Amino acid sequence: MSVTDQLLENNEKYAAGFAGPLPLPPAKHVAVLACMDARIDVYGVLGLQEGEAHVIRNAGGVVTHDEIRSLAISQRLLGTREIVLIHHTDCGMLTFSDDEFAASLEADTGERPGWHARAFNDLDEDVRSSVREIVASPFVPHTDSVRGFVFDVATGRLREVR
Amino acid sequence: MSVTDQLLENNEKYAAGFAGPLPLPPAKHVAVLACMDARIDVYGVLGLQEGEAHVIRNAGGVVTHDEIRSLAISQRLLGTREIVLIHHTDCGMLTFSDDEFAASLEADTGERPGWHARAFNDLDEDVRSSVREIVASPFVPHTDSVRGFVFDVATGRLREVR
Repeated sequence: MSVTDQLLENNEKYAAGFAGPLPLPPAKHVAVLACMDARIDVYGVLGLQEGEAHVIRNAGGVVTHDEIRSLAISQRLLGTREIVLIHHTDCGMLTFSDDEFAASLEADTGERPGWHARAFNDLDEDVRSSVREIVASPFVPHTDSVRGFVFDVATGRLREVR
Repeated sequence: MSVTDQLLENNEKYAAGFAGPLPLPPAKHVAVLACMDARIDVYGVLGLQEGEAHVIRNAGGVVTHDEIRSLAISQRLLGTREIVLIHHTDCGMLTFSDDEFAASLEADTGERPGWHARAFNDLDEDVRSSVREIVASPFVPHTDSVRGFVFDVATGRLREVR
């Protein structure tokens, strides 16, 4: 049995205890942007319940056009007002460089990607620059509360980056 | 108290019961790509535990360069092999058009975004085309198991799109 099939079996159990539909707009008016890392269960880490917050995730928790797209839709169409940005310790993005990754893709596929891998080497500085990128975007209207954190995978604790 | 501060209080409780560090590579070798919708707690829906799967999320659960970037990093550097794609019923992306959204941004900011909102009007067809885009990318090497689903926000159940 594939892992996907195991997860579908898990879903049957989830659905059996499911409480029913909730409204579309996030009840807590928050959007979270976090790394895709498997160890960050965003709902658990922040004590969120279903229906409370948008959750946007990618490799590194970085800010590209696509995250601005999601945040613009979240705030402008669905009423979120605060943004919580989460990077984390022991991140894979600290272990390679954009050039190395592009070169390995080119070596294997004959094609160089039209995007950068967005690796970084200073966790706190990448959190700060990500916050700055969000605040600077004209398409994200509500930037009074855009706060950045590092999740410690050893302790489960968030540390705010200032 | 801001919502963000409430979530930080929740995090203190989470950290108090935290079991400690897990390995970086996802234990179940799966990457999930889902919509950012607040009602989809991916770990709950799929019965995932911390450390088991990468989770990538954006408005709509669509496939752009940034999702290919995340999936390429997930598979090539961190060993994932299966991909689970999740859209859902009652999606905000079904309620507007790219042109409308771009026009409203331009009206409010004086600037038209360099990206499309990626709204869609056929849920199943967008799942199918997203699966096709992933399979077609040269940068995502493992495409034997790329399966697409619609999460029903009324029942909590996943339905596979074929």
